[in-house]
Amino acid sequence: MASPHSSSTTQALNTTNPANAIDSLQLRSALGRYATGVTVITTLDSHGQAQGLTVNSFSALSLDPALVVWSLRLESKLLEVFDQSQLYTVNVLSDQQQAVSQAFASSKGLKFAAATHQITEQGQVLIEGAITQFECQALSYQTAGDHRLYIAKVLKVTEMPGMPLVFYKGQYTQLNPS
Amino acid sequence: MASPHSSSTTQALNTTNPANAIDSLQLRSALGRYATGVTVITTLDSHGQAQGLTVNSFSALSLDPALVVWSLRLESKLLEVFDQSQLYTVNVLSDQQQAVSQAFASSKGLKFAAATHQITEQGQVLIEGAITQFECQALSYQTAGDHRLYIAKVLKVTEMPGMPLVFYKGQYTQLNPS
Repeated sequence: MASPHSSSTTQALNTTNPANAIDSLQLRSALGRYATGVTVITTLDSHGQAQGLTVNSFSALSLDPALVVWSLRLESKLLEVFDQSQLYTVNVLSDQQQAVSQAFASSKGLKFAAATHQITEQGQVLIEGAITQFECQALSYQTAGDHRLYIAKVLKVTEMPGMPLVFYKGQYTQLNPS
Repeated sequence: MASPHSSSTTQALNTTNPANAIDSLQLRSALGRYATGVTVITTLDSHGQAQGLTVNSFSALSLDPALVVWSLRLESKLLEVFDQSQLYTVNVLSDQQQAVSQAFASSKGLKFAAATHQITEQGQVLIEGAITQFECQALSYQTAGDHRLYIAKVLKVTEMPGMPLVFYKGQYTQLNPS
């Protein structure tokens, strides 16, 4: 990603307030250098409608108890849905699911048209073709800057064959097959 | 990680609430299907000694303000160091630094013998060869299960050329060069 005004930013950092002057483009670019898997996190809203969105801020948090963490922009249309959700599933996408990731990353269009899904008896929404599904119970959330940080307890995991979709430098990529 | 009373816990969970009976090995395996970059997080301890360890639970958290999040086992020898640390650096490792990752993941041996580092005027510990360095100011920490979750403000980012080291299924790997 191009950072058109990085040189002036560096100058500003030196002269004004180094602690607060970090440039947003520069930050995004740097954060993109940490490679991640890609997940679609799904839930049923209060009307029983399946909802979901693409998330690459997922992380393991604790083994005993089994906890995971992820975050969502405060501006997201699904913020209220996930604030109220008791159960949600983290679907880890395979390298065959770039279109699924793109559909669920968009705020418009029929996200669920991009992937077959099933809803379990418990009300978990499973995306077909995912390489791993973490069926979770919401535990807590907190605001941190411009995001909400969610912590969930993992109730059930399912692994399927396949290689992961990977996000790096703002692009989709794959692991070296070797 | 040894968990001396996991079997009795699992038994108790099995007879009462099947939803809580998730197996630790199964969980680890499933979590391993979410690909991540690899970081070494470094700081100066209260004696001015450079300390660091390998972390792959790093994640972007907020753009404005610039926040990141990561977690550390409560059993880690460096827990107290990071609880007290005001400044630390997240060094994102390159695909040439597998040995660095292994050295800093071990609790024995001279970790810093594996990588050249420099200490900035502010007291940040920078690992040479990293593809990105996030110089951070500690903001908060909280206990979540068997881990501590740390949130930090990013003060400065530096990007260098190179491709990332990637961790997947408990193994080091790389991105597809294409």
